[in-house]
Amino acid sequence: MSKLTDVPKRILIGRALRSDKLGETLLPKRIALPVFASDPLSSVAYAPGEVLLVLSIAGVSAYHFSPWIALAVVVLMFTVVASYRQNVHAYPSGGGDYEVANTNLGPKAGLTVASALLVDYVLTVAVSISSGIENLGSAVPFVVEHKVLCAVAVIVLLTLLNLRGMKESGKLFAIPTYVFVIGVFIMLAWGAYRAFTGDDMTAPTAELEIKPEHPGLAGFALVFLLLRAFSSGCAALTGVEAISNGVPAFRKPKSKNAASTLAMMGTLAVVMFCGIIALAMESGVKMAEKPAVDLVRDGVPVGDSYVQNPVISQVAAAVFGQGTFFFVLLAAATALVLFLAANTAYNGFPLLGSILAQDRYLPRQLHTRGDRLAFSNGIVLLAGAAVLLVVVYGADSTKLIQLYIVGVFVSFTLSQTGMVRHWNRHLKTTKDPAKRRRMIRSRAINTFGAFFTGLVLVVVLATKFTHGAWVALLGMVIFYGTMTAIRKHYDRVADEIAAADGPSDDSLRPSRVHSIVLVSKVHKPTLRALAYAKLMRSDRLEALSISVDATETKALRDDWERRGINVPLKILDSPYREITRPIVEYVKGLRRESPRDVVSVYIPEYVVGHWYEHLLHNQSALRLKGRLLFTPGVMVTSVPYQLESSEAAKKRAKKRQDWNAPGAVRRGPVDRRPKETSKN
Amino acid sequence: MSKLTDVPKRILIGRALRSDKLGETLLPKRIALPVFASDPLSSVAYAPGEVLLVLSIAGVSAYHFSPWIALAVVVLMFTVVASYRQNVHAYPSGGGDYEVANTNLGPKAGLTVASALLVDYVLTVAVSISSGIENLGSAVPFVVEHKVLCAVAVIVLLTLLNLRGMKESGKLFAIPTYVFVIGVFIMLAWGAYRAFTGDDMTAPTAELEIKPEHPGLAGFALVFLLLRAFSSGCAALTGVEAISNGVPAFRKPKSKNAASTLAMMGTLAVVMFCGIIALAMESGVKMAEKPAVDLVRDGVPVGDSYVQNPVISQVAAAVFGQGTFFFVLLAAATALVLFLAANTAYNGFPLLGSILAQDRYLPRQLHTRGDRLAFSNGIVLLAGAAVLLVVVYGADSTKLIQLYIVGVFVSFTLSQTGMVRHWNRHLKTTKDPAKRRRMIRSRAINTFGAFFTGLVLVVVLATKFTHGAWVALLGMVIFYGTMTAIRKHYDRVADEIAAADGPSDDSLRPSRVHSIVLVSKVHKPTLRALAYAKLMRSDRLEALSISVDATETKALRDDWERRGINVPLKILDSPYREITRPIVEYVKGLRRESPRDVVSVYIPEYVVGHWYEHLLHNQSALRLKGRLLFTPGVMVTSVPYQLESSEAAKKRAKKRQDWNAPGAVRRGPVDRRPKETSKN
Repeated sequence: MSKLTDVPKRILIGRALRSDKLGETLLPKRIALPVFASDPLSSVAYAPGEVLLVLSIAGVSAYHFSPWIALAVVVLMFTVVASYRQNVHAYPSGGGDYEVANTNLGPKAGLTVASALLVDYVLTVAVSISSGIENLGSAVPFVVEHKVLCAVAVIVLLTLLNLRGMKESGKLFAIPTYVFVIGVFIMLAWGAYRAFTGDDMTAPTAELEIKPEHPGLAGFALVFLLLRAFSSGCAALTGVEAISNGVPAFRKPKSKNAASTLAMMGTLAVVMFCGIIALAMESGVKMAEKPAVDLVRDGVPVGDSYVQNPVISQVAAAVFGQGTFFFVLLAAATALVLFLAANTAYNGFPLLGSILAQDRYLPRQLHTRGDRLAFSNGIVLLAGAAVLLVVVYGADSTKLIQLYIVGVFVSFTLSQTGMVRHWNRHLKTTKDPAKRRRMIRSRAINTFGAFFTGLVLVVVLATKFTHGAWVALLGMVIFYGTMTAIRKHYDRVADEIAAADGPSDDSLRPSRVHSIVLVSKVHKPTLRALAYAKLMRSDRLEALSISVDATETKALRDDWERRGINVPLKILDSPYREITRPIVEYVKGLRRESPRDVVSVYIPEYVVGHWYEHLLHNQSALRLKGRLLFTPGVMVTSVPYQLESSEAAKKRAKKRQDWNAPGAVRRGPVDRRPKETSKN
Repeated sequence: MSKLTDVPKRILIGRALRSDKLGETLLPKRIALPVFASDPLSSVAYAPGEVLLVLSIAGVSAYHFSPWIALAVVVLMFTVVASYRQNVHAYPSGGGDYEVANTNLGPKAGLTVASALLVDYVLTVAVSISSGIENLGSAVPFVVEHKVLCAVAVIVLLTLLNLRGMKESGKLFAIPTYVFVIGVFIMLAWGAYRAFTGDDMTAPTAELEIKPEHPGLAGFALVFLLLRAFSSGCAALTGVEAISNGVPAFRKPKSKNAASTLAMMGTLAVVMFCGIIALAMESGVKMAEKPAVDLVRDGVPVGDSYVQNPVISQVAAAVFGQGTFFFVLLAAATALVLFLAANTAYNGFPLLGSILAQDRYLPRQLHTRGDRLAFSNGIVLLAGAAVLLVVVYGADSTKLIQLYIVGVFVSFTLSQTGMVRHWNRHLKTTKDPAKRRRMIRSRAINTFGAFFTGLVLVVVLATKFTHGAWVALLGMVIFYGTMTAIRKHYDRVADEIAAADGPSDDSLRPSRVHSIVLVSKVHKPTLRALAYAKLMRSDRLEALSISVDATETKALRDDWERRGINVPLKILDSPYREITRPIVEYVKGLRRESPRDVVSVYIPEYVVGHWYEHLLHNQSALRLKGRLLFTPGVMVTSVPYQLESSEAAKKRAKKRQDWNAPGAVRRGPVDRRPKETSKN
C-alpha cells in the first residue's frame, strides 16, 4: 500500500517494517552506538562552551582553570560509565534507572527517578534543538536571526514525523553521527598538527577582550564559580543512561555488547570534550555570559547585534577556516546530530511511559504497543512542553542548560544508590567467592558513583537553583503528583473489583435473561439483530419500539404483521419524542419486577465510513447505550450492519495498524513464546 | 434538586417545569401575543429609522415621502397578516411556511423556504441584538462606545442561557413586551397631545442639517431610492410568520385564537410604526446614512465621534425629554424586547430543525426532543454565525438590515404561492357552495399576498443586492446544499438497508453462535461477564485472554484453575503487546472456518463517573469494539460493571434529562395517546 507522500520518507529511512518483523532488527554495536549515543556525544557541541562561559565571569584569566574542570568532568564521565556498566550487567531487561531505583529503593524513589527522566526528556528536546539551531546558525546566519521560529519549526517537524510513525533506523542515526564524530576527530587531529607545527590558529573571537562581571574573584566566591562551571560542563553527561534502558535491543550477548558500547561512547565523548576545550584555549576563543556587554572590541562592547557562536564552530573556524567546506560540513553534522539527540526523547518517552503504565502510574493503554492515540498524546505533550520552554527561554541553549542537569543527576544518584543496595542484597545470598569478589568490586564502583553523582547533584542544585533549576524541580513535582494520583485511582478500582476468594461469587449469578431488540423500522439491520437475538435463546425475547410518530408506528406494526415476524412487538409511546428515557425506564421496570433477571438489549447499529456520517447515525443508540450502562443487571449488544461506505474506514483502520510506535527499536522485542496455547 | 446557581434563574422565569408537564402550558392569547410577537413588534424600533435614513440620501426634502412609504408598509403588513390568517386556518398543525411550500410546491420550494428561514434566524439574532445595543446606548453611552463587545456579550449570554435550558415562559415575555408596547403608546398619545396643543417638540437632531449625498434626485433614480426606502421599512414585517409556526401552542380553538392574535399583532405594529414616523417628522428627527459626513451642525460635519441614536429614542427624547424616567424606561424596555426577539430565534431554530429532521434534511436526532447534544450544536452554530455577522458588520443594525429582508420575503412569497395551490386543490374536491365561497375568498387574499410579497422580493433584491443581500443569498445556498446532501445520504442508506419483501430474508439467518468472553484478570467485572455469557446458552463458549506479560498470564491461568471456572480459557500470545489485532484476527479466523456462525464477543466494561477516569479505563475495549464492528457476523456485548464513582455520572445524566429543549413552548405538546400498547 504505497502512497505518494511516503516516497520522501522511504528515501530517508528505508522500507517501512511491519512490527511483526521487529524481532529481526536487533542492533549490532556499530549501529547501537549511534542510536543510543547521539544524545551524549552531541552534548560536546554545547558543554565546552558552557564551561568557558561561566569562567568568563571572573575574567579571561579564569580560563586557565578550564583544563582542571575538564579533568573533573572526565573523571565524572568515567565514574558514570563504569557505574552504568554494572547496571547493564545486573539488569539486562533494560529497565534502566527507574527499574533499578524502584526495585532497590522502593516505589517513591522509583517515581522520583521517573519524574526526573520525564522532565529530562522535555529538556533534551529543548536544549538539543536550541543548540542545533545555534550550530546551524554559525554557518547559515538566517537561522540564528530567527532562532525561536526555527527551533519551533524543527520541533514541529520532529513531532509530525513521530506522529506519522517515523521509525528510528540504524542508518538514520549512523550516517550523521559517524560524520560528526569523524569530523570532530579530523578537526582535533588537524588542529593538534597545526598547533604542534607552530601554525597560528585564531578563533573569530580571539581579538575580543572580556570585561569580567566580577573581576579578581577569589576564595569561596571563586570556588563557587568553579563549581558552577563544572556543573555546566556536566551537561556532557546527559543521555549516558540511555544504553542501560536499551539493553534488550542489542545483539547477543546483550549485556556485554551494551557494556562495550557504553565504554566506547564514554571514551569518544571524553576525547572530544577535552580536545575541543584544548583547541578553544589554543585558538583564543572568548565566550561570555552576557556577550553584548561583556565582550569588548577595541574598548567598545560588541552590542546586541553580536551573535555568540558555539565553541565547536569557533574552533572549526580556527582550524579549517570560516566558511570552508569542512567548516560547513561539521556545522551541518553537528546540527543534525543534535536534532537526532532531540528525537531520542521522542522514543525514550513512550518507552518509559510503557514501563510506568505497566506499574499503573500512567494510563494502561501506554503499555500496549501501537496504541497510536496514547502515544500521540504523549508526543504532543512532550512537544508542547518543549515548545513552551523554547519560546520562554528564547531558544537560548545556555539558559535552558541551567534546567537540564538537575534531572539527570537525580536519576544518576538514585540509580547508583539502588545498585549499592542491589549488590548488598545479592551478597547476602551469594556464596561463590569469585562471584562475591566481582560483586564487591561492582558495589565499590556503584558506591563511588552514587557518592560522586550525589555530590554533583548538590553542587548543581546549589549553583543552578536560582538560575532555573527550580523550574525543572517544579516539573518533577507535577509529574510525581499526577502519577501518584493515577496509581491511587487504579488501586482503588482494583480493590473495588477484586473477586472474593474461593469458587466464583454466587451473588453475581443471575437466573434468567430477558432479551429486548430495539426496532425503529423493519430493515436489514433490524432483521439481522432479530436473527442474532433469536440464536441466543434467551428466556424471553421481545422487540421494542418507541413511538414518536403515529404514522410511522402504524407502518411498523403493519410491516411486522405482514412479514409474520414471530417475535412479540412492544410499543412504548413517547409523547415528547424522547427515545432514551422510555427505554431506560422500561428496562428498570423489568429489573424491579424480577431483580435476579438480566436484561439484554440488542441495538442494531449502522457502521459507516466517514466521521460526518457518524453525525447522521447512531446518535440515539450511543446515548442510549451510555445511559443503559449505568443500570445494573443490563448488558448491551451492538449488532453492526456494515454499510458500503464502511469499507473506507476499514482500510484506514488497517493502515493505522501498520503504524510504528516511537521507541519500538530501543525497546527491543518482547520474548517470543509459542504462538497460541489453549487450556482446559 | 435545587442548586444555588438556579436561584437567579428561578427568580427570573419562575419554577422550572418538567417536560412531562408541557401539556399544561398551552398559551392564552394574552401570553401568546408577547411570546410570538416580540420579534415583529420590536422591529418598530429600527424600521422607521431605516426609512428616514435612506430618504436622507436625496436630502431632507425627501422626508416628505415618508408618510407614503409608511402607507405602503401598512398595506403590505395588512396583506401579509391577512394571508397568514389563511395559513393558520388551513394548517393548524403549525408547519408554517416550510410545510406549506413543501406540501403545495414540492420539496425544492420547501427546502428553499427552509434555507431562507434558517438564514433569517441568524439575522434575527444579529439585527435584534445590534439594534438593542443601539437603543440601550441612547441611555447608557458606555454600551454604544463598546458596541461590538456588548453585542457579542449579549449573544454569549443568550447562548449560555439557552444551552443551560432556559425555558421560554409567558411571564418572561409578557412583562417587557407589554411595558414596551404601552410605553410606545403613551409616548404616541403624549406626543400627539403636545403636537395638538401646539407645544414645540424638538428632537436632539432637530437643529442638524443634512448634506444630501445625491441632491436633486429625480425621475427613475428617485423612484429607485423610494423603493429602497420602502425595502428598508419592510424590516417591520420580519417575524410575522412566527405565529403560523406556533398554532399548536395556542389554547383551543387554536386556529381562531392564532388568527386573532395575528390580527392584534398587525394592528399594534402598524400603529406604532406610523406613530413613530409621524412624531419623528413632527419633532424634526434627522437620520443620515453616513452621519459623520452627511449631518452638518453650523456648517461643520459632526464627525466620527457622533453617535446616531435610533429614531424611537430620539422621539422619546423629544416627547419626554432626554434622560427623564420615561425616556430611560422606554430605552430599557426597547432593548429588552429586542433581546427577547433575538431569543425567539434560539427557539425557532430547533423547532424548524426538528421538522426538517423529520423529513431527513437534517440529522435525525434533531427530531427527538431533549436531545441536548443536537440542540446544543444547533444553538452554537446559530450563535457563531450571529457573532460572525455582528463582528464583521460592527454591530451596525443598518448594515445588517440590508441582509435581513431577503430571506423573509423569499419565504413569504413561496408560502403564499403555496397557499394559492392549496386552495386550488381543495376547490377541485369541495362541493359545498358556502365552503367554496370561503375558499375562493381565501385564495384571492393569498393570491394578492403572493403577488405583493413577490413584488417586494424583487424590489428588495434589486435595491439591496450589492448592499449585502448577496451574503444572505450565499447563506441560503449553503444551507440548501448541505440539506440536500444529508437527504441524499439518508436516501442512499435507506435503499441499502431496505429489507427484501416477503417473509424475513433467509440469507441473514445464521446457524450457530460462538461466544467469546474477553478476560484480562479474574475480578468481579470478568465474573459478571462470564455469568451473563453462560446464561445466554450459546453453542460454544470460551474465555479469551491476550498475553502481553508472561507473569500476568501465569497468574491468570492459576487463578482460573484454582477457582474451577468451567469455561475453557484460550490464551493468545501478543509479542508486541497489541490487544486489538490478535482478537480481530482470531474472530476473523473463526468466521472463515464456519462462515454461517455468528461470533458474540463479551467485553467486561468499567462504568466510571468522571471524564478523566474514562482516560484511564476502557480504552482498549472501545478501540476493540470499533474494530470488531467492521467485521461482518460479529456482535459485541458490553457487560458493564458500575464502579462507585459511576453514581456521580448517573446523577448528572438524570439532571440532564430535566433539561428544557429550546422551542419546547412554541412547539406545543404532541398528541397524547394511551401510554403503552402491546401487540402479538
